[in-house]
Amino acid sequence: MDFTGQHILSVNQFERDSLDYIFDIAAKMEPYAKRQKRTKVLDGAILGNLFFEPSTRTRVSFGCAFNLLGGSVRETTGMQTSALAKGESLYDTARVVSSYSDVIAMRHPDAGSVAEFAEGSRVPVINGGDGANEHPTQALLDLFTIQSELRAFDEKIDGMHIAMVGDLKNGRTVHSLSKLLALYKNVKLSLISPTELAMPDYVVDTLSNAGHEIIISDKMESNLGADIVYQTRIQEERFASQDEANKYRGQFRLNNEIYTKYCKSNTVIMHPLPRDSRSDANELDNDLNQNPNLAIFRQADNGVLIRMALFAMTLGVADKVDQYQCDVPWVTSK
Amino acid sequence: MDFTGQHILSVNQFERDSLDYIFDIAAKMEPYAKRQKRTKVLDGAILGNLFFEPSTRTRVSFGCAFNLLGGSVRETTGMQTSALAKGESLYDTARVVSSYSDVIAMRHPDAGSVAEFAEGSRVPVINGGDGANEHPTQALLDLFTIQSELRAFDEKIDGMHIAMVGDLKNGRTVHSLSKLLALYKNVKLSLISPTELAMPDYVVDTLSNAGHEIIISDKMESNLGADIVYQTRIQEERFASQDEANKYRGQFRLNNEIYTKYCKSNTVIMHPLPRDSRSDANELDNDLNQNPNLAIFRQADNGVLIRMALFAMTLGVADKVDQYQCDVPWVTSK
Amino acid sequence: MDFTGQHILSVNQFERDSLDYIFDIAAKMEPYAKRQKRTKVLDGAILGNLFFEPSTRTRVSFGCAFNLLGGSVRETTGMQTSALAKGESLYDTARVVSSYSDVIAMRHPDAGSVAEFAEGSRVPVINGGDGANEHPTQALLDLFTIQSELRAFDEKIDGMHIAMVGDLKNGRTVHSLSKLLALYKNVKLSLISPTELAMPDYVVDTLSNAGHEIIISDKMESNLGADIVYQTRIQEERFASQDEANKYRGQFRLNNEIYTKYCKSNTVIMHPLPRDSRSDANELDNDLNQNPNLAIFRQADNGVLIRMALFAMTLGVADKVDQYQCDVPWVTSK
Repeated sequence: MDFTGQHILSVNQFERDSLDYIFDIAAKMEPYAKRQKRTKVLDGAILGNLFFEPSTRTRVSFGCAFNLLGGSVRETTGMQTSALAKGESLYDTARVVSSYSDVIAMRHPDAGSVAEFAEGSRVPVINGGDGANEHPTQALLDLFTIQSELRAFDEKIDGMHIAMVGDLKNGRTVHSLSKLLALYKNVKLSLISPTELAMPDYVVDTLSNAGHEIIISDKMESNLGADIVYQTRIQEERFASQDEANKYRGQFRLNNEIYTKYCKSNTVIMHPLPRDSRSDANELDNDLNQNPNLAIFRQADNGVLIRMALFAMTLGVADKVDQYQCDVPWVTSK
Repeated sequence: MDFTGQHILSVNQFERDSLDYIFDIAAKMEPYAKRQKRTKVLDGAILGNLFFEPSTRTRVSFGCAFNLLGGSVRETTGMQTSALAKGESLYDTARVVSSYSDVIAMRHPDAGSVAEFAEGSRVPVINGGDGANEHPTQALLDLFTIQSELRAFDEKIDGMHIAMVGDLKNGRTVHSLSKLLALYKNVKLSLISPTELAMPDYVVDTLSNAGHEIIISDKMESNLGADIVYQTRIQEERFASQDEANKYRGQFRLNNEIYTKYCKSNTVIMHPLPRDSRSDANELDNDLNQNPNLAIFRQADNGVLIRMALFAMTLGVADKVDQYQCDVPWVTSK
Repeated sequence: MDFTGQHILSVNQFERDSLDYIFDIAAKMEPYAKRQKRTKVLDGAILGNLFFEPSTRTRVSFGCAFNLLGGSVRETTGMQTSALAKGESLYDTARVVSSYSDVIAMRHPDAGSVAEFAEGSRVPVINGGDGANEHPTQALLDLFTIQSELRAFDEKIDGMHIAMVGDLKNGRTVHSLSKLLALYKNVKLSLISPTELAMPDYVVDTLSNAGHEIIISDKMESNLGADIVYQTRIQEERFASQDEANKYRGQFRLNNEIYTKYCKSNTVIMHPLPRDSRSDANELDNDLNQNPNLAIFRQADNGVLIRMALFAMTLGVADKVDQYQCDVPWVTSK
């Protein structure tokens, strides 16, 4: 299993054993992310963190992951200030910027743009999201979180029951996660969404072909008895009409009362974040914040581990991280 | 005196002895800021420098202070690109971002927002300004500057005479500085402003209750015979009418001629910066630039020392800075 | 030859021997930029990377050059968020920001602004472009590229033939490059542009006074038999009328067919980048991308070497770079 010098562009490039490998490395990153240890394995290396579409959370997560391995970060955000706006090809941008960096993380609003960029790049490119197309590090961190959370109950992804709730039609994260779940065995999926926002057929087919059991419903409460509930946002403007939107208003909002009544005692709650915490949002209620099964912040934390793992792998230092370990003089609160 | 793991949110959290402690540490940072020495005590640590409201000067000052201690900086600027704009709560943002950082410096346009953020944060948060509310590092650097400047003349804050000039009604900096001055003894304050922009009663009361002598006036020239003149900007749009504004136009602009005529020979001139150097501004004239008592740039320099001290204190390494000292190979011009 | 503590503001400050000196140092930076070696000579130093006018490519190139020498970077981009917008003078900005940095790279839309800023700065300032005025690091990297490319054919700048093509009237890069070429001997220059966009007289005079042979033409194809073809963009809005623009449309676009027919077998193609790769642009065609004599990406790479050299020189560590060498644990693809 060697990812040295490779691009990470799509979840399609992973097999079951590569996921196991990535997750093993990610798990070893935890003491570094928690500051129990520190490493300088990438001291002097440069990440080109190119966010042609803004995304504070993902940008900072990539940057911190690289800093945690000892490296430096050069960033760019936004399209309008960039040469791309003056007609420069992605090939040219890639040729030039890749000479400034040892590895590149890139987000761009256009589907396929990151892969096109990668063709011109002289260094590994990690896709940080290309429009409606792919966001592979999100899918990896989601799956890694599921594995970690289930492990606490001595369960596995093979054989688990996951309920995906919300806008399953437009949700890039649930599509990618589903593709990865097709690499596992005997998964039961409850796909819960308004009818208008149902999971696309091609995703359902992928899951069916993997032999998984699939339940499709537009009722949330009766379908929450899963090991994992993966909640995503429903934006009202996604509906064809306001009438349609009104029909579902409040029907896909999970709060502590519903959790207690309908979920199992240890059902894990996930969400790709950010969650809309305004009272009229169809999402996770703040009253779940003290629920120990709310995994949304551990999920975000895991994003750093996955990105550290991918940097270490693509730069060929996954087995050298410990070797470059050094002390942590400051006091950490984590 | 231990600030390890604590948030720095308000000047109200300081006592006289904590100010002495902070200023002692800040003074020890000077050779590092001047590049006579270099330290790696925070090598590998990450500052989350979150400026939801732009402020180049303060942002860069925090970032450089952290770099000077050896650490790395991950930044974000502006609101519109952030998840906060999509309804994410400050609690969620704090939970997520604090896992990416060892300490956070934050500016936000809303009063109280930084304290709210701090409740969700897993690492110390330093307030870099929350709207009209607080900007504690500015107050600390102002007071530290006063102490340093007076020390050159063998004087102290206790017993000094300070004239505050300009918009005392809306000036966050003079309010916070006044609160800190209430911790000292026998200070004489000349509060000089247009009547409409006078110091609020609650600040005057705080100063009175501390036993300080207070002179209130709307005439600048006759009140400049102080040890310190702290000038702030008057914006004409603050007045109720243009007639009112016209009445005071040019009456609060300090230049070399007025300084020579009305100030003491060693009166120290301060200003929170940026100063408006256009000729119609009611501020400090450029012809004071060669005056050795113009302390405005030393004041800005001191901001780096104060921020270094706060980072070292909150991360528990104030006594380890020298231990991680190393050489400076390059030639410094400072 | 000592540039320690000096500003780099204009190509006018260089003589022939200083160019030789800079290029020698730049050449020694190549193994560091290519990651065959790594240095920590500027570990702990801070670059203030001030881009008051956006320019992703130049900004990142300066930042990476500093990182490659081991230093840290604090950045600011855009005018509107800065104190300059509130009437702060460049002198004040310089006094304050220079205390946060060991060296400053600065771009600003106004001609002369970087020199004005440098007067207030306490550390060396490198001009990253000040409007229509100067962009000295671009001129240096262009000339360094010419020297490197010619050396591969055992040729020199003295005695070479260069064709400059495109908008020679408004092109800051060709003006600065011409000034530097005036320091060399027996150069033949073909200045090829639409009549309306011809090289300004003062530049032609400088070249004539240096004893160079000059050919002026508005025909590209018959003038391409040079050692170097330096192509720049023609923007249609530069013409007085659309009729005038139409007359030249497509006449200054170089592609592989024209190259094969009119250039020498080893004519080197250069361009300051970004190039407009849209099909209606008057520039370099993408079908040249596989031509080994297309030097545009080597040219961009050289920008990092030149900027590394300038940082090392102004900070007085040009002869210490190797001394602070250390290992590169990661796998590089370059």
